[in-house]
Amino acid sequence: MGKHKLRIIPLGGLGEIGKNMMAIEYANDIIVVDAGLMFPEEDMHGVDMVIPEISYLLERREKLKGIVLTHGHEDHIGALPYILPQLDTPLYGTKLTQGLVTVKLKEHRYSDKATTKVIQPGQKYPLGNLTIEPFSVCHSIPDSIGLIIHTPIGAVVHSGDFKIDYTPVDSKPTDLARLAQLGAQGVLLLLADSTYAELSGYTPSETVVGETLDHIIADAPGRVIIATFSSLISRIQQVIDAAARHDRHVFIIGRSMKNTTKMAAELGYLNIPTGVVRQPDELHRFPHDKIVLLTTGSQGEPTSALVRIANHDNSQVRITRGDTVVMSATPVPGNETLVHRTVDTLFRQGAQVIYEKLAQVHVHGHGSQEELKLLLNLVKPKFFMPIHGEYRHLSLHAKLAKSLGMPESNVFIIENGNILELDRNKARITDKVPAGNVYVDGLVMGDLANVVLRDRKMLSRDGIVVVIVAIDKKKGKIIGRPDIVSRGFVDTTEEETILEQGRDLVATTLERSSGRPLEWSFINTKVKDTLGKFFYEQTKRRPMILTTTMEV
Amino acid sequence: MGKHKLRIIPLGGLGEIGKNMMAIEYANDIIVVDAGLMFPEEDMHGVDMVIPEISYLLERREKLKGIVLTHGHEDHIGALPYILPQLDTPLYGTKLTQGLVTVKLKEHRYSDKATTKVIQPGQKYPLGNLTIEPFSVCHSIPDSIGLIIHTPIGAVVHSGDFKIDYTPVDSKPTDLARLAQLGAQGVLLLLADSTYAELSGYTPSETVVGETLDHIIADAPGRVIIATFSSLISRIQQVIDAAARHDRHVFIIGRSMKNTTKMAAELGYLNIPTGVVRQPDELHRFPHDKIVLLTTGSQGEPTSALVRIANHDNSQVRITRGDTVVMSATPVPGNETLVHRTVDTLFRQGAQVIYEKLAQVHVHGHGSQEELKLLLNLVKPKFFMPIHGEYRHLSLHAKLAKSLGMPESNVFIIENGNILELDRNKARITDKVPAGNVYVDGLVMGDLANVVLRDRKMLSRDGIVVVIVAIDKKKGKIIGRPDIVSRGFVDTTEEETILEQGRDLVATTLERSSGRPLEWSFINTKVKDTLGKFFYEQTKRRPMILTTTMEV
Repeated sequence: MGKHKLRIIPLGGLGEIGKNMMAIEYANDIIVVDAGLMFPEEDMHGVDMVIPEISYLLERREKLKGIVLTHGHEDHIGALPYILPQLDTPLYGTKLTQGLVTVKLKEHRYSDKATTKVIQPGQKYPLGNLTIEPFSVCHSIPDSIGLIIHTPIGAVVHSGDFKIDYTPVDSKPTDLARLAQLGAQGVLLLLADSTYAELSGYTPSETVVGETLDHIIADAPGRVIIATFSSLISRIQQVIDAAARHDRHVFIIGRSMKNTTKMAAELGYLNIPTGVVRQPDELHRFPHDKIVLLTTGSQGEPTSALVRIANHDNSQVRITRGDTVVMSATPVPGNETLVHRTVDTLFRQGAQVIYEKLAQVHVHGHGSQEELKLLLNLVKPKFFMPIHGEYRHLSLHAKLAKSLGMPESNVFIIENGNILELDRNKARITDKVPAGNVYVDGLVMGDLANVVLRDRKMLSRDGIVVVIVAIDKKKGKIIGRPDIVSRGFVDTTEEETILEQGRDLVATTLERSSGRPLEWSFINTKVKDTLGKFFYEQTKRRPMILTTTMEV
Repeated sequence: MGKHKLRIIPLGGLGEIGKNMMAIEYANDIIVVDAGLMFPEEDMHGVDMVIPEISYLLERREKLKGIVLTHGHEDHIGALPYILPQLDTPLYGTKLTQGLVTVKLKEHRYSDKATTKVIQPGQKYPLGNLTIEPFSVCHSIPDSIGLIIHTPIGAVVHSGDFKIDYTPVDSKPTDLARLAQLGAQGVLLLLADSTYAELSGYTPSETVVGETLDHIIADAPGRVIIATFSSLISRIQQVIDAAARHDRHVFIIGRSMKNTTKMAAELGYLNIPTGVVRQPDELHRFPHDKIVLLTTGSQGEPTSALVRIANHDNSQVRITRGDTVVMSATPVPGNETLVHRTVDTLFRQGAQVIYEKLAQVHVHGHGSQEELKLLLNLVKPKFFMPIHGEYRHLSLHAKLAKSLGMPESNVFIIENGNILELDRNKARITDKVPAGNVYVDGLVMGDLANVVLRDRKMLSRDGIVVVIVAIDKKKGKIIGRPDIVSRGFVDTTEEETILEQGRDLVATTLERSSGRPLEWSFINTKVKDTLGKFFYEQTKRRPMILTTTMEV
């Protein structure tokens, strides 16, 4: 025991390090923490989602003892339908997390084939040489856990996504006592959430939002429409409680909100007093000041219930003067424009809209600087590796650790695919393993060769021009005038003139250079040069030019 | 006098109302306030910029008395090179604003043809029936003004972009005294900046930033690199002052920063103590703790000096451990990803990066709620119309006015192209005039027909497939197998198989339906249906399908 090295490898996260997947390896055992997806960035045209590359795990499949899931958010479980068929390994997670995983695997018709084991905080689960011991953490979904990983050379603590909330609504507080006890015994390595390392102070408690929602529901002259994430079950609970207190009925609008609340209620994570929640077809039976509507759409998603309502595209609800709409969420980076448009549309129709900038209708699920310091102080790790965040967040988290007296040489900021290798006394960054992003686009998973993305980007800018040249097979000369069609390049009013001129230009150019039999590569070069220049002069645009020849 | 109606028409602003252009019309006179541009939103593929539609003005060119510019930012002067040749009317603006306009018009070789008149706060300038009286306001560029417009039926106040800063760095404080005096005499209408109507309290003074920068420069162990907007001359002044105080030299990196500081110094808006600013080729002569670098790139613009430095693409500067980089600006909405990537890259190279979330290294140039209330209180207008902001900002600004006791019926939220028509006692929204967005794309200005933008969007998602079918003119039958090429659709590894299958499919389909002579529209429909379905089944993607026929 102890003669092997412990290897920590962040494997997934678009820009963020170790966010979607981490591998922990000792001798002949590997456990994986989380298997999530990320949504594509702006310049990844047409990509539906991004998942971690798992070639490192595939090559060591016999070592793999299981995937442990810290909680049920998409960025931690969303890649399972894509990678589980390849890895075929048991899944460990708490009850609600497994509930959400099952729903997801069912959609992909894989639920029968998966081995899922429900785990509980405070219990220990040996997976080969590595024993995992989950501990409760607060986050924006119930049943979230962090992990103590007992290894032959010492304990590793993985925080999961966490905040410290002494008055959480639906979950146990983060188990500081167990962490303090462990810290006293000695912890080899801490891996901790850096998402909000930029923010000073403490993240407010979920209870604060409950108070704001209570005031809004008490004071609103008409209906209150509250949009939030369907997985934010504590928020849903607070809405139901506030509605009940003020003698209002709650109507749940939209399929995903209905499904999650149903599942959460069945598993015991949502407590709905009798008679409070009603079916949408009963809406007309109640006056407006007795109504609370609960919907998705806090991110301005075009197909969500709230956006349909705002766009007069929902059969049950239409905004009227007197309605109060609460956006009980922060726009996820990249969604700002959609959210703003939705808010503007709602205001236009006479609603009062309350959102994060105007009142505390949302708190986030990650710890701020003081919470990060508290965790570091309790766990007192020998080595520290910030994870879950982009490089700047990790840098700031590392700086916090140093400000608490940790030696700089014991703090490691590493990138996805880097390996942190440890024994009892030393840690260092060694190898680099493949840990790219796998793009899921339609049915295809792969690296979606840069060329496809580059083409799409180019097409999106100035469109495309297709040139078809007919060639007399025997004579090697062009027949008639070449054909040109375009899309996304010029307006229909300009199109005819410029394309006709282009046809003439290509014809002249190719006729002039007919000293030898025409072949595609020669034609292609000529056409690209001549037309490219001509179109740029005329329009200052550079469409993609595609030449095809047809021999007849 | 007084028998005509006064008409107020917001003409330009992408999402924002009246931001880029307002028209004010009385009897036979029209004055225009500002002529700015907006940068395109995400879904406006390939559009370079967006300018206001001016057809309303072109139809009334004989009435137009001039364009009055409130300040020299792009969103207030940037459309001039495009619209001035069409409108050919005099420009009124303060000295620095005219300086920036001249630079801009020179670039477009139009400066000789423009009539520009320098105006001064406190003076009156009659333009037909309408007399403009500029007043000083604080904003993030010196020489900013608001306008009192004296009309035959009463005074109109246009705030321009403004904040209230009692300790501005390089401009006069907002002229509250003149506004109070005018308010006492009676103001018909106030048009006021709503940009920050979401924020409670007061916007901090520019001086606060000076203190933060002073501390950073005093404490930094090595070089300090400060990135900001080149037009933010007060910030540049504060950097130069702090550097001088701490015995450091300032090196200005990047063309646009050099040009603006030169111009501002020549016009007297920037005060540079002798010997403080040095040429970049002297950089090696000074130790790192005697150096401050001033650059553009606070928005992560790929061609800016800071981004080039971060990417090892600047010949003079390379980041080393010990450097401190200050992002002295907020990311403009839409630029967040670029800014974050730049910050991450700088951290990766060992720099300490200080940005808005970590310290007060930026304040914005617009008033918050208390300032908006103060303006309303001083001006005491009979009618109020919030401008400069998206619909939600205007709604919140209107709500503020109502909270101060203004009757709801005297507050008007209108959209671009709506006309607010007033006499001494009444105001109402009447007509709707054309006020769309004109897209500038390359050399073309126009509405860039939705079809072009829609095509580009579709192309950017799943690419394009071009099908070329050769037809025997005499027999009306296809010749050989159709040709298929694609771009941005599938990876090269999958491409051959799927396109070959597609060729067979098209050939079979067209051969089977050869009861009558083949013509393009029939072929096009068949090909789109068959291939569209086939590709979707195979890939879950929907590329654009373009069919061309060639008769031989």
